[in-house]
Amino acid sequence: MIQKLISKIKSTNAPIVVGLDPMMNYIPEHIQQKAFAEYGETLEGAAEAIWQYNKEIVDNVFDLIPAVKPQIAMYEQFGLEGLKAFKKTVDYCKEKDLVVIGDIKRGDIGSTSAAYAVGHIGKVQVGSRTYAPFDEDFVTVNPYLGTDGVKPFVDVCKAEKKGLFILVKTSNPSSGEFQDQLVNGRPLYELVGEQVARWGEECMGDDYSYVGAVVGATYPEQGRVLRRIMPKSFILVPGYGAQGGKGADLVHFFNEDGLGAIVNSSRGIIAAYKQEKYEKYGAENFGEASRAAVEDMIADISQALNNR
Amino acid sequence: MIQKLISKIKSTNAPIVVGLDPMMNYIPEHIQQKAFAEYGETLEGAAEAIWQYNKEIVDNVFDLIPAVKPQIAMYEQFGLEGLKAFKKTVDYCKEKDLVVIGDIKRGDIGSTSAAYAVGHIGKVQVGSRTYAPFDEDFVTVNPYLGTDGVKPFVDVCKAEKKGLFILVKTSNPSSGEFQDQLVNGRPLYELVGEQVARWGEECMGDDYSYVGAVVGATYPEQGRVLRRIMPKSFILVPGYGAQGGKGADLVHFFNEDGLGAIVNSSRGIIAAYKQEKYEKYGAENFGEASRAAVEDMIADISQALNNR
Repeated sequence: MIQKLISKIKSTNAPIVVGLDPMMNYIPEHIQQKAFAEYGETLEGAAEAIWQYNKEIVDNVFDLIPAVKPQIAMYEQFGLEGLKAFKKTVDYCKEKDLVVIGDIKRGDIGSTSAAYAVGHIGKVQVGSRTYAPFDEDFVTVNPYLGTDGVKPFVDVCKAEKKGLFILVKTSNPSSGEFQDQLVNGRPLYELVGEQVARWGEECMGDDYSYVGAVVGATYPEQGRVLRRIMPKSFILVPGYGAQGGKGADLVHFFNEDGLGAIVNSSRGIIAAYKQEKYEKYGAENFGEASRAAVEDMIADISQALNNR
Repeated sequence: MIQKLISKIKSTNAPIVVGLDPMMNYIPEHIQQKAFAEYGETLEGAAEAIWQYNKEIVDNVFDLIPAVKPQIAMYEQFGLEGLKAFKKTVDYCKEKDLVVIGDIKRGDIGSTSAAYAVGHIGKVQVGSRTYAPFDEDFVTVNPYLGTDGVKPFVDVCKAEKKGLFILVKTSNPSSGEFQDQLVNGRPLYELVGEQVARWGEECMGDDYSYVGAVVGATYPEQGRVLRRIMPKSFILVPGYGAQGGKGADLVHFFNEDGLGAIVNSSRGIIAAYKQEKYEKYGAENFGEASRAAVEDMIADISQALNNR
C-alpha cells in the first residue's frame, strides 16, 4: 500500500491528505436540516449528515489528492450509527481510488492489538470464512505499550500489504509532557522514532517502509531530527493549517527525493467555507470551497519544497 | 461512579473485575454452532456467538462481582456487528447493576479525545437533543499525548460522575521499552503516575478519585511504588491469572484500608472450562466453570490480603 500511496502522490503532485473529521458545527445547516428532516435529531440523523457532508467534499477533491484520513473518534462519538458512517466513508473513498488512512490510534497488549489489526487492516476468521471488517489501507498506532503492542499490527501489514503510521511526536501543545522527556540526554520521541525505523525494516516497499510515523507540523525542528532517524519511514504530518503549521515548516519532514512525508489538513479543508478567504463560496457550495483550499494547500507546499 | 464501585466492592467483598474479552476460540462449539445455524458464518453470526457467550457468563457471576471490563478490540475486530454485541453487553451488564469499565485505551489530541469521551462516558449533542451512545461507567485512557489529550476525559468524568483508568505501567512483557526509561533517574511510569494523581485531584469522591490508573499485576514492585505515588487513585490491575500474576503479588496494589485496587481476570474466568481444574464442568456448563473460577479468585485475593 505504501507503493500505491507513493505513486498517487507522484501522479497528483500533492503530498497531502485530507482529514475527514466531521464535527457537527462544521456541517452546513442545509445538510443538517435535510438529514434531521429524514431521520430526526437522532444519532442516525447525525450519521446521515456526516455522510452527506463527507460525500460532497470527497466528490469535490478526490481527483486532486492521493489520500484521506477519517478520524474515527468523530464518528465513534455518535455510537454505532456514527461508525456506520465511518465505514461508508471508508468504502466510498476506496471506490474513488483514494488511499484511506484510518486515524484510530489504537494500541494494546499483543493479543488485543492483534484484534484491532485484523479488524481494521486485516481479515478476521469466522468459522471457515474470513472477512475484512473495516478494511482501511493504513491505520495510526499508539506505541506506549512497546514492541509487543505494535508487532501484531506490523505482522498484519506484512501479510496484507497495508501500512501503519505510529505516533512519535504528536502535534498537540502538551505532547512534550512525556514525549520530550530526556532519556540519557535524548528525548523519548527519538527512541520511539528509532523503534519505528527498526519495526519498519521488515516491511519494506521499494524505497520506503510500510511502517511510517506521525510527527506534528507544529514541531518542525523535531521533524528534521526524526527525518534523519527514520530515513525509510513515511511521516504523516498533522497540524498544518488550523493547528498552526505552515508550508515553510514542512520542508524538513521531506527527504531529498521530495518524498517521505504526507501532510494532513482537516478543518482547514473540510470547513474551508467558514474561513474569510473562501466565504465567497457560501455554505451551499462548501465542497467547492474545500476544493479551492486543497489547491491552495498543494501550491503552498509545492512552493515551500521548491524554495528549499 | 467511584463511590458505586467502592460500595459494590465492599458488599461483594470482591475487589475483582471480570474481563469480557471473548476470543472465538474461547467460545464453546455449541454456542458457535447455534449462532452460525441462525446467521451463517458471518460477522453477525460471530457477534451473536459472542453475545450469547457473554450473557451466560454474566448470568452466572453477576452476583459475586462488582464490575466487568469488556475489551472493545475483541468486538471491534468483527466490525459493526461486533460493536453491536459490545453495546448489548454493556447494556446488559448495567441492567445487572454491574459497573462497566470499557477497556478502550483511547487517547488523542484535545478535540478528538473530547469526541471519544462524549461517545463513551458522556453525552453527544445532536441538534437540540443529547444521547449517551456507548454509556460505559469507566473507560481506560492512553496518556502518551499528555494533559491536553487526557483533560477532555477528565472534564466529562466530572460532569457525568463517571471514571477513568489511565495506563501507567501496562502488564505486557515489553511495557518497559518506553515506560521504564529513566528520566532524571526515575522511570517514565512514575512521572505518568504523578500526573494521574494530579489529574485526579479535581475529581475526588469521598476517599478516592474518579481518575484511576492501570498497573499490571505482572509488575508487583512497580505497583508498590505507584501505590504510594497515587494514594487516592484506584488501580485497575490486569495480568492476574493467565498473564502470570498471582494473589500474593497483588497485595502491594492495595491501600491499608483494603481498597484502592481492583484486579482483572479475563481468560482465567471466561475460558475457565478449558482449564484442567474446571474441566469437570464441561463445555456445556462453561458458565458454572466461570462461577467457580470467580469464587477461587476471590478466595485467593482475600487470603493474600489477610496474610499481609
